[in-house]
Amino acid sequence: MVVAKKYVLVKAFDGFPNNDNIEFQEETLLPLKDGEVLFEALFLSVDPYMRLFPIAVGSVMIGEQVSKVVESRHSDYAVGSLHVAKFGWRSHTVVHPKDLQGQIQHLPDMEGLSPSLGLGAVGMPGQTAYHALLDYGQLKEGDTVVVTAAAGAVGSVIGQIARIKNCTTIGFAGTEAKVAWLKELGYTHAFNYKTCNLGEVLTAAAPNGANVYIDHVGGDMATEIINNHMAVFGRAVIVGSISAYNATTPQKLPGLFHGILMKQLTIRGFMHPSFSAAENAASNKDVIHWIKEGRLAAREHVTKGFENMREAFYGLFKGENIGKAIIEV
Amino acid sequence: MVVAKKYVLVKAFDGFPNNDNIEFQEETLLPLKDGEVLFEALFLSVDPYMRLFPIAVGSVMIGEQVSKVVESRHSDYAVGSLHVAKFGWRSHTVVHPKDLQGQIQHLPDMEGLSPSLGLGAVGMPGQTAYHALLDYGQLKEGDTVVVTAAAGAVGSVIGQIARIKNCTTIGFAGTEAKVAWLKELGYTHAFNYKTCNLGEVLTAAAPNGANVYIDHVGGDMATEIINNHMAVFGRAVIVGSISAYNATTPQKLPGLFHGILMKQLTIRGFMHPSFSAAENAASNKDVIHWIKEGRLAAREHVTKGFENMREAFYGLFKGENIGKAIIEV
Repeated sequence: MVVAKKYVLVKAFDGFPNNDNIEFQEETLLPLKDGEVLFEALFLSVDPYMRLFPIAVGSVMIGEQVSKVVESRHSDYAVGSLHVAKFGWRSHTVVHPKDLQGQIQHLPDMEGLSPSLGLGAVGMPGQTAYHALLDYGQLKEGDTVVVTAAAGAVGSVIGQIARIKNCTTIGFAGTEAKVAWLKELGYTHAFNYKTCNLGEVLTAAAPNGANVYIDHVGGDMATEIINNHMAVFGRAVIVGSISAYNATTPQKLPGLFHGILMKQLTIRGFMHPSFSAAENAASNKDVIHWIKEGRLAAREHVTKGFENMREAFYGLFKGENIGKAIIEV
Repeated sequence: MVVAKKYVLVKAFDGFPNNDNIEFQEETLLPLKDGEVLFEALFLSVDPYMRLFPIAVGSVMIGEQVSKVVESRHSDYAVGSLHVAKFGWRSHTVVHPKDLQGQIQHLPDMEGLSPSLGLGAVGMPGQTAYHALLDYGQLKEGDTVVVTAAAGAVGSVIGQIARIKNCTTIGFAGTEAKVAWLKELGYTHAFNYKTCNLGEVLTAAAPNGANVYIDHVGGDMATEIINNHMAVFGRAVIVGSISAYNATTPQKLPGLFHGILMKQLTIRGFMHPSFSAAENAASNKDVIHWIKEGRLAAREHVTKGFENMREAFYGLFKGENIGKAIIEV
């Protein structure tokens, strides 16, 4: 008899998430029926989108995990095989895979890299970085690229892909340790947005403006960059809007319309599910190649223990993670 | 000896334009030298962009005219031939055409339509409507299209092209007379933005949101439409931002980032010069065809007399024109 651990949303988010919102619970799983599979989480992901997307009160917190088959009554799911699955914040999960179409994918061939990267650079965040920059951002050789939350799971990959594509890269993060790491990654310029003068450093680092801006923060910072530091025909891709997720009153910001018009900008909202499995496989292939060549560092911020998952999640909104935040069970 | 009449910007705009900004002047033209051509304006255009783009104090007001060659010492410019030329607000102009590369174009074959349409539906505004809707807006059969300043030179053409493409069209204008005209043009829905409840009428007329929004106004109205009335993957094309042109303090508006992200919108700034002569010729051909078939009405708001040009210009910002504002000399 397996007892699954899980986290349930018991009170809708309002402001910063805390333990009043998310409750630890246990659940005794029933023996497998024909066609069912028992999975055990090895690594779980915490991501800002878990604060953004609506989750029904009483539901398990949403999310992905790298999960191993520990018992199987389904011929496609061999015991010991690894999967990336959208089971939410659960240690153990019994499912009939046909009930979760597209939610359980075989872990890509990692070519010897850690399976946990299937939640990061070789998973949703890495694919997001790749498609936001190359497809929506229409990156061209020699472009100047600005990235906020540059030391995060997505931002750190963006800066490195842009560097590989011979672009000038300008990253913003919120601690000196992150800024130091961005420089190690090869960001051309890296700044602590909490202590720098945004306008001054961008005027100096991007005198002709940014061709591509990958936004994770929204709010005043994104407004300043879009209104005052884009090149003509610049592309801004909105990948996150973390400054607004925990805001309890709507923001009022300087308008964007005049700048969009005068510089003929394109601003586009990005959601990972709009890309196909084939497109994501193409991203994975390139990213694995770059990691193995030593050109792309896939740093992880690992929290050990399923019991610490909530704190790891809250930490995202305090800027605690450098690289991809992962829970190792 | 020809005396040219002209209007000169003598004081930079600040708020609504008036006669303190624009001065009537006369200028005696010298006899033609070899290679020069004397043009006489038949029709002149006033457009909101003349308030938007920077003009040096002391310069003639910028703009297009339909102009006739009245004397020529250049073999490519026959006396009597008609041109669309960026000579600004001048009754007569002597130029060596090679000094104004690309600024003087032969009037397209109007197939019997008024030459004045070369400043409207068969000129810059019509080409803007066409490319904003079909290229940047990526209009698809059956889409729902929202247009502000819908009774203007661009908006009125947009609604009609969208109707020809079997789309649901929703137009906003600022007087009852304009709204009545929008209904004559075949707009599916037309509203007076000054008296309607924007949220309510859009919720009723576009319950699934707009696939394409063509914005001429910016400000609160554009913000409300983009944040609350777009369909997923909607496209907003910023063609003008007239609410901001005469504003003397910067606007603060609800943020757009969260909505752009959640609905995966694309917002794009449009400037007419980004389209080629060949692309504009394609637009002209379709528009002339639609006009001659009786499917597209190219209404003009004609002010007679060069001496009344300033008032026609000021009228743009008071919403006086229905259709394309034209000065007939």
